[in-house]
Amino acid sequence: MVPGHEIVGVVTEVGCKVEKFKVGDKVGVGCLVGACHSCESCSDHLENYCSKLILTYNMPNHDGTRTYGGYSDTMVAPERYVVRIPDNLPLAAVAPLLCAGITVYSPLKYFGFTQPGTHIGIVGLGGLGHVGVKFAKAFGVKVTLISTSPSKKKEAIGHLGADSFLVSRDPEQMQAALGTMDGILDTVSAIHPLLPLLGLLKNNGKLILLGVPEKPHELPAFSLITGRKTVAGSGIGGMKETQEMLDFAAKHNVTADIEVVPMDYVNTALERLAKADVRYQFVIDIGNTLSATKP
Amino acid sequence: MVPGHEIVGVVTEVGCKVEKFKVGDKVGVGCLVGACHSCESCSDHLENYCSKLILTYNMPNHDGTRTYGGYSDTMVAPERYVVRIPDNLPLAAVAPLLCAGITVYSPLKYFGFTQPGTHIGIVGLGGLGHVGVKFAKAFGVKVTLISTSPSKKKEAIGHLGADSFLVSRDPEQMQAALGTMDGILDTVSAIHPLLPLLGLLKNNGKLILLGVPEKPHELPAFSLITGRKTVAGSGIGGMKETQEMLDFAAKHNVTADIEVVPMDYVNTALERLAKADVRYQFVIDIGNTLSATKP
Repeated sequence: MVPGHEIVGVVTEVGCKVEKFKVGDKVGVGCLVGACHSCESCSDHLENYCSKLILTYNMPNHDGTRTYGGYSDTMVAPERYVVRIPDNLPLAAVAPLLCAGITVYSPLKYFGFTQPGTHIGIVGLGGLGHVGVKFAKAFGVKVTLISTSPSKKKEAIGHLGADSFLVSRDPEQMQAALGTMDGILDTVSAIHPLLPLLGLLKNNGKLILLGVPEKPHELPAFSLITGRKTVAGSGIGGMKETQEMLDFAAKHNVTADIEVVPMDYVNTALERLAKADVRYQFVIDIGNTLSATKP
Repeated sequence: MVPGHEIVGVVTEVGCKVEKFKVGDKVGVGCLVGACHSCESCSDHLENYCSKLILTYNMPNHDGTRTYGGYSDTMVAPERYVVRIPDNLPLAAVAPLLCAGITVYSPLKYFGFTQPGTHIGIVGLGGLGHVGVKFAKAFGVKVTLISTSPSKKKEAIGHLGADSFLVSRDPEQMQAALGTMDGILDTVSAIHPLLPLLGLLKNNGKLILLGVPEKPHELPAFSLITGRKTVAGSGIGGMKETQEMLDFAAKHNVTADIEVVPMDYVNTALERLAKADVRYQFVIDIGNTLSATKP
C-alpha cells in the first residue's frame, strides 16, 4: 500500500489528451482519483458523493489495479482529479487544504454559513478546525472556537483570528452561549456528546458532523424538534469546488499551518501525531524539494 | 388537570378587543395558547419554537394560573391562538389537523418536500402518518408509506392514495429502495433504528423526526457524511402557518380519518388507543353536538 491523499507537486509529464495542465504547472491531488461520471452526483460536480468513487490510495481502480497515494516521488492521476495550485500560495502549506481545507470549505458554503451576520462554532482545534477558522474568517462571519482545552484560547483568538473561545467542559460558559449560533462545524472524531452542541444552536440551527467516531452518536429527538434543528454530515467536496476553494484561499491568503519534515522522519511524525504533538499538520517533503515552512 | 389540545368549536362570546372573530364562527385551538411575542421566533410567526411558549393545557399561564385544555364544553383562548375553520370542512374531522395536521404540513413545506418531482417517505401509518400522506399527495409529490406492517398496504395505497408501500422489515424491499427518496417524515415515537431510513435517502436527503422515543436515537456519523444527509426535527407549527394549513386543507379537501365518540366513552377510547385500535383518531363530542363522522 502507498498512502497519502493530500498531495502537491509539479507536472513532469502530461498525456496527449490533457488540456488543463502543462509541464511545470503547480498542481495537487486530494482524496479522489475517480468516480462513475454518469450518476447525478457526478453530473452535479459532486464526485465525492458518487457511490463508485475511487479514493486516492488502496482502492480498486477502473482497470482492477489498486490506487497508489502520495507517499511517492511521482504520481499519475486523471486530469479531472488534479487541481491547479495558485502561484501565490506556498506549495507545502496548500497540501492539507486538499482534504482538510475542502472538508470545512464545502459545508460552510452548502449550509449557508457564509451569509453576513452568521455566527458559527467550530468544535476542535486540529487539522480541520484551524483551517475552518481561517476560511470562516475569510468569509467574514463570526467564529467561536469550541474546545475541551482552555489552553488553546490564545492560539484560537490571537493567532487564528477566532472571535471567541468556548470551553465545552465549562458549564457556565456553555450556559451563557445557549442558542447563540447559526451553525457548528464539528471536526472531532473522538466520541463526544452532541446534546451540548445542539444547545448552542439558535432555532433552525445546523450541526455539521465532519468526524467519524468509532461508535454512533446519541441523538435525542427532542433536542432537534424543540428548535427545528439539524444534524447533517459533509465529506470533502467535488473537484470543481476543490478548485474554487484553492482560488478562494489564494485570494484571501488562507493556508494550513504546517511542519515540513523529510521522508525518513515519517515514523517519528506518526508517533508525534498520535500525541497531537503537531501544529497542525505534517507535510512530508518526499522529493526533498520543499523549503521548510514555519507556521 | 383538563387535557385536550386539538379543539374545535363555535364562538359563543368575544372580548372587546377581538377583531378576527365573531359569535357563531367555526374555530379551533391547537397545542398553543401563548408565547413571549417578543423573541425572534415569535416575530417570525414561529410561536411554536418560542422558548416561553404556553401549551394549551396544564402549563403556567402569564397570570400564574394553569392552562385548561379542550376536555370541556367551553374554553377561553387568546385571539392569536385561535384559527378559523373553513366552512366547507367538517368540524370534527378538522380537530386532529390542529396538532397532527400542522406537524406534518410544516416540515413538508419548510424542508422543500413540496417541490414537483419530489419523492418522500412517510414512516408510520397512524394519526400523523395518515394525514401526512394526504397532505403530501395534495402537494402533488410522490409518497411511499414505510411501515413494519405489510397488512397496511391496501389502506395506504387504496384508501389514502400513497404511491407505494415499503415494509421496513423486509430486507429485499429496503435494498431495492436504497437511495430513492428526497426526504422522509418519521412519525414513529417508538424506539427504532434510523440507519435503514437514512439508507433510503438520496444524497442531500433529509430525514425529519416528528416523534420522540423515550431513548436517544443511535446516529452513526458516516451514514450522514457519505451522502451529505440530514437528520432534523420539526414540532407543530406557528399560528400563521396553522391557518395556512387549514386553508390549504379546505382547498384540497384534506381532513383526518376519525371516529367520533361521546364523552362517557373516553376511558374505553384510551384503552383502544393503547392497542392502536382506532383509524386514526378519536374525536370526543363533548357538547354532544357533532354528528357522527365515518372515515
